[in-house]
Amino acid sequence: MANSRFEYVKSFEQPDVLLPNTWIVVRIDGRGFHKLSDHYAFKKPNDRRALDLMNAAAVEVMKDLPDLCIAYGVSDEFSFVFHPSCQLFERRNGKLVTTIVSTFTAHYIYKWSEYFPERPLLPPYLPSFDGRAVIYPNNRILRDYMSWRQVDCHINNLYNTTFWTMVLQGGMSNTDAEQELKGTVSADKNEILFKRFGINYNNELEIYKKGTVLYRQYKLEEAKPTKSPADEESPVEAKQSRSQQDKIRKLRRKAQVVIDHVDIIKDEFWEKRPWILSGTPGKLPA
Amino acid sequence: MANSRFEYVKSFEQPDVLLPNTWIVVRIDGRGFHKLSDHYAFKKPNDRRALDLMNAAAVEVMKDLPDLCIAYGVSDEFSFVFHPSCQLFERRNGKLVTTIVSTFTAHYIYKWSEYFPERPLLPPYLPSFDGRAVIYPNNRILRDYMSWRQVDCHINNLYNTTFWTMVLQGGMSNTDAEQELKGTVSADKNEILFKRFGINYNNELEIYKKGTVLYRQYKLEEAKPTKSPADEESPVEAKQSRSQQDKIRKLRRKAQVVIDHVDIIKDEFWEKRPWILSGTPGKLPA
Amino acid sequence: MANSRFEYVKSFEQPDVLLPNTWIVVRIDGRGFHKLSDHYAFKKPNDRRALDLMNAAAVEVMKDLPDLCIAYGVSDEFSFVFHPSCQLFERRNGKLVTTIVSTFTAHYIYKWSEYFPERPLLPPYLPSFDGRAVIYPNNRILRDYMSWRQVDCHINNLYNTTFWTMVLQGGMSNTDAEQELKGTVSADKNEILFKRFGINYNNELEIYKKGTVLYRQYKLEEAKPTKSPADEESPVEAKQSRSQQDKIRKLRRKAQVVIDHVDIIKDEFWEKRPWILSGTPGKLPA
Amino acid sequence: MANSRFEYVKSFEQPDVLLPNTWIVVRIDGRGFHKLSDHYAFKKPNDRRALDLMNAAAVEVMKDLPDLCIAYGVSDEFSFVFHPSCQLFERRNGKLVTTIVSTFTAHYIYKWSEYFPERPLLPPYLPSFDGRAVIYPNNRILRDYMSWRQVDCHINNLYNTTFWTMVLQGGMSNTDAEQELKGTVSADKNEILFKRFGINYNNELEIYKKGTVLYRQYKLEEAKPTKSPADEESPVEAKQSRSQQDKIRKLRRKAQVVIDHVDIIKDEFWEKRPWILSGTPGKLPA
Repeated sequence: MANSRFEYVKSFEQPDVLLPNTWIVVRIDGRGFHKLSDHYAFKKPNDRRALDLMNAAAVEVMKDLPDLCIAYGVSDEFSFVFHPSCQLFERRNGKLVTTIVSTFTAHYIYKWSEYFPERPLLPPYLPSFDGRAVIYPNNRILRDYMSWRQVDCHINNLYNTTFWTMVLQGGMSNTDAEQELKGTVSADKNEILFKRFGINYNNELEIYKKGTVLYRQYKLEEAKPTKSPADEESPVEAKQSRSQQDKIRKLRRKAQVVIDHVDIIKDEFWEKRPWILSGTPGKLPA
Repeated sequence: MANSRFEYVKSFEQPDVLLPNTWIVVRIDGRGFHKLSDHYAFKKPNDRRALDLMNAAAVEVMKDLPDLCIAYGVSDEFSFVFHPSCQLFERRNGKLVTTIVSTFTAHYIYKWSEYFPERPLLPPYLPSFDGRAVIYPNNRILRDYMSWRQVDCHINNLYNTTFWTMVLQGGMSNTDAEQELKGTVSADKNEILFKRFGINYNNELEIYKKGTVLYRQYKLEEAKPTKSPADEESPVEAKQSRSQQDKIRKLRRKAQVVIDHVDIIKDEFWEKRPWILSGTPGKLPA
Repeated sequence: MANSRFEYVKSFEQPDVLLPNTWIVVRIDGRGFHKLSDHYAFKKPNDRRALDLMNAAAVEVMKDLPDLCIAYGVSDEFSFVFHPSCQLFERRNGKLVTTIVSTFTAHYIYKWSEYFPERPLLPPYLPSFDGRAVIYPNNRILRDYMSWRQVDCHINNLYNTTFWTMVLQGGMSNTDAEQELKGTVSADKNEILFKRFGINYNNELEIYKKGTVLYRQYKLEEAKPTKSPADEESPVEAKQSRSQQDKIRKLRRKAQVVIDHVDIIKDEFWEKRPWILSGTPGKLPA
Repeated sequence: MANSRFEYVKSFEQPDVLLPNTWIVVRIDGRGFHKLSDHYAFKKPNDRRALDLMNAAAVEVMKDLPDLCIAYGVSDEFSFVFHPSCQLFERRNGKLVTTIVSTFTAHYIYKWSEYFPERPLLPPYLPSFDGRAVIYPNNRILRDYMSWRQVDCHINNLYNTTFWTMVLQGGMSNTDAEQELKGTVSADKNEILFKRFGINYNNELEIYKKGTVLYRQYKLEEAKPTKSPADEESPVEAKQSRSQQDKIRKLRRKAQVVIDHVDIIKDEFWEKRPWILSGTPGKLPA
């Protein structure tokens, strides 16, 4: 509405549209969650309620933005993935990232008291998150990104589980435990857990070992390994009209967002749920 | 800690460092606040509690990030300004914007019940914000940016005040009021308010007419108009060591963040508060 | 070597690395070639020597930069293509584009007198070129880019051939010819050429109708249409070590750069020359 | 003219407009000039004809692009400077850089035989250049950039002069000379030159010691040191209409481009030629 001699300052805004036909991953991270988790006494090595709260906030983000096709969370981070055909906000980097960061934060704060009723939020210890967008040119690399995060989850969780068991059950000091774990490989940690504490790491909860994957639930399909996971959807499909996009958005809203803790590194997960990489909604389950 | 064959995906992250020695403005905007303000029954044309909540959240952002030197808010938007010498997060665009958006959102949600005790938040109507960073190469253009927002505030508020008075007090339909206001200038709207409703626009609250400016309070200085407002600080000053930056941050934390509703277009505001453009903390008031 | 208090200005240089694992196309265009072609009396609608000069300069660029895997030229423009696995100059946009523009210009000026011996260059009419880099995320889109340029070549050449035949052989004014051609489709232009001037457009030279494609010559392979043209090479292959890159560069230097005027829209061209999309040198012809 | 289903590939082109109201410096560098200068037997430490050729090509670039307000050259590099008010090519980075690189290359190749009549160019030893654009937010930093290049020129030339005198006149091996110079400061090198070879470095040619500065010649003005060198032109001046820009371009074309070898670090150079920083053409000399 306004129109003044100062409006030229708008010309300093610079475009930040992400390359078309590429996967967009928005990863958010808790700011200063180390200190925060101490303050609110999160359990070590994993606090189930804190993870459930992360997942609950992420589900709301998925519901709010039907363009999202999958998300993966571990610890205080979450990765949200838009399909190469996504046109939301004309693919503007800043708009996509800040919308996700803000929506996630809003739900996280709003739901806090539900998950931590006995530990009310108190400024200045108010949780917040930063975020970034990264684009990936094809399915293979997108899957490698997802695998990277899940491998990270595994490595960190095995370390943390061993470390905190040594400290909390073994009575070691933090320094001593850290020192002993330096240079160990997975087998060593598994052995420490089993031999000293009778813990079989395989029996730990899947949510801790695998992290959390969120996606919309359609009818599972038979694995058809014919198509290489690196296959690109054709850019023609990708160029949907606005009305097609709206239609697809509606179909996606109808699907339930599920919370899963499964392997996303192997092909099986993706082959049974072809709608994730194709970007085309599947059939709703009966 | 982790180290896997998937880590190459990190190489797809692209740098987004903002040009050194330029002003950084991060402006955030409420998402879908038109619908939201209907849902929570914000008063028209201005809801004082909603503005106070915006300002309270912005004050927390200023406290959390001492690198911020001034902020300006109107309606459901807020502009936060970093000095050209700012080195926070190595001036990474995404990090600066998402941190502000998330911190603001967290406080806004957290404080909501304090300002709207009788209207609890209820998803899916959860407030959220998007944001962007824009850089400006010198003081003159930064001030033109601030002036742009304040002129915008004035123009919009005069329109909204007239429109809603015609509707709420004058009993006109939205369409009729809109129609009559089409093509009018400020003088016309002032006259409508005064002649028909006995309202002198000048007597409206400053917070509505001028918006809100936040800054750290030091001892006011005598206006010294010798230095042109376009004067650049030398880049040598700007290149502070890390310890200098930490020292300045501490000094800034000591200053109180004040909420003001004054003209920021004319020179006076800036000449009396030279610490804002210079980036050097002033003397604390007695 | 130098080290002064002014060196901080280097910090204003901003990174411009192109996204990994994407095709890089550098397209250069003649600056003011309309005027230039008048000045040096290029023949209408096509000047064979001018095209041969463009192609000769482009061949030198291909020889100078073995990382280039294909190039396509039409009129006063040329597109040079780097494979997704290319690491030349760490994929810095500016470095890649200016190197190609400068190398091309140098050879174009140097070879001019060989192609236009009777029309020596004379400033200020010195040919120059501008350029840009664009990245494409997969094979399908890279091929669509190449098709786009070849379709453009066809459409422009049919128009120009008809227009200049009407003017030069038909004695029409430029304006009249332009007017008559407005709104015509390909069939109309073919008919004008054939009925009025006895010209069968199909008999025009391939270099005019198809433009010019440059690539390194290896032993042609049997077309194997099993692999979809959109197949991505795996990023693992793409991540070659420096010594592998050097070895591949040597192999490429050994291959002859050929000048061809063939259809690059259909699959056949690409299937017989799989080394172009794969980025792996083929077998040298016997 | 063309319009095909492939045209969507244009959407992959990304904008690269440089921030408004900032200085634009395009610096070009010779590619592989170390090897090239050996091949064409450039004289050590400085080859006057090679520098004159660089300067002659740069003058042509200045003439071709009246928007350029100053240029500085040393060795095989040249920096071309556009004023903050420059709107050429809508300030598109790629367009500005490639135009300068190509125009420079064209003139360099074209004029080569004039400066090196006895050493004709011979591929593959064809000179070429790469380039980059950097933006600077104010006058002070632009001047620091120019100072940086001139200090670099001085330091390199003193080193090279001493080194080559030790080798060519002193009969030392390259390695011995290099070894002896390691860790020396300016005074040491001056002493070596003077004591061993009777050379007073101050008497060396200005073109070697100071490099080359190019600018348009108007009537010199009395130095008025009142205005700080960091003063920003107001952005209002900067926002010229297209017709104003054309008028200024014409005035600039009328001014002669001069080749100078003077100090550009101190204020004097800039104060006497205020048109360079102001961007407003001065009065033509009588």
